[in-house]
Amino acid sequence: MTKLNQKNSEKNIKWHNLTIDRRKLERMRGHKGMVIWFTGLSGSGKSTLANAVNEVLHSEGLSTYVLDGDNIRHGLCKDLGFSDEDREENIRRIGEVANLFMNAGIITITAFVSPFISDRNKVRKIVGSADFIEVHCAANIDVCESRDTKGLYKKARLGEIKDFTGISSPYEAPESAEIVVDTGSLDLNDSVQKVINYLKEKDLLYGI
Amino acid sequence: MTKLNQKNSEKNIKWHNLTIDRRKLERMRGHKGMVIWFTGLSGSGKSTLANAVNEVLHSEGLSTYVLDGDNIRHGLCKDLGFSDEDREENIRRIGEVANLFMNAGIITITAFVSPFISDRNKVRKIVGSADFIEVHCAANIDVCESRDTKGLYKKARLGEIKDFTGISSPYEAPESAEIVVDTGSLDLNDSVQKVINYLKEKDLLYGI
Repeated sequence: MTKLNQKNSEKNIKWHNLTIDRRKLERMRGHKGMVIWFTGLSGSGKSTLANAVNEVLHSEGLSTYVLDGDNIRHGLCKDLGFSDEDREENIRRIGEVANLFMNAGIITITAFVSPFISDRNKVRKIVGSADFIEVHCAANIDVCESRDTKGLYKKARLGEIKDFTGISSPYEAPESAEIVVDTGSLDLNDSVQKVINYLKEKDLLYGI
Repeated sequence: MTKLNQKNSEKNIKWHNLTIDRRKLERMRGHKGMVIWFTGLSGSGKSTLANAVNEVLHSEGLSTYVLDGDNIRHGLCKDLGFSDEDREENIRRIGEVANLFMNAGIITITAFVSPFISDRNKVRKIVGSADFIEVHCAANIDVCESRDTKGLYKKARLGEIKDFTGISSPYEAPESAEIVVDTGSLDLNDSVQKVINYLKEKDLLYGI
């Protein structure tokens, strides 16, 4: 894979003071970097859909990475709670990190509730609208609450979780998301297909 | 590059609920992810050396990315100043982001003064010592100050910059960095060679 081995005999490293910028990294990977931002209520299937889309793109040889609660909340944002201010800062940091990954030529997939329009628009501005694909996982709250995969709605109803999105804190649905997937009624295969179809139709996955 | 085009005619996307984890991403890239952390005084040549190493590795087909002041201070850490507390939080966030990039199978190169041993050790802990390569750019302060490429030492001497590392704030040199480069006397070619030699000797760049 690397040719450095063969260079053992050569005396001097060659470098040319080139900046390895986004375009060079995209050319290396064979596709553009972008941010695919999944938003929706807890239980709407964001993470499941994001990971399934990631798997499909990865299996096609595209360079992808998923940012989600698992790798963000215990690391970069472990100092933040769930107050409005902290939620805003949480999404801002994720947006900045997604932007760095995109600049590394990576298809960056995020899965966070991200309930506020203003916060998502701030990320859209950081990333640049042309490279920001907002995917609304639009399962309605009754479906999400009946699933209650993590038992969080029950706790929220009992008042054990404060400021829970959809129960005691608002979810502001996107007004013009690039993709809306009714994750309440569509099955996972069809949901994945809908996202992939959009990316293909917009010519976002092909060689550059 | 991608085969999705050929799949237009197929009705169903194939996904298998696989986790695309670090090992899978490293296999795809053909090498391990790691963090190469350059530390040293302002003017010690960290950024120049980091970018030259990046260029060499990129030209060999390895997947790399540089985190430095240019893409961090105006984005992820733009809310932070230069107090001890803010410097600590700055380095913590950079460490967490470097860890994410490493987990994406990328050779992650950072170039920050990062003057405090405790902060660098915290990053070493986040990343894991086996994957953390600390490179001390060890030009002494007289050399750095005589270069004064950005005019910062002059301003610091005049008291126009407070808490300037090496002048009015300490630089704690690493006690056991993986690589020490005397960037005060070695030229850039030899400095790059020293870093690359270490990575080759430790078998860190070859196919996995």
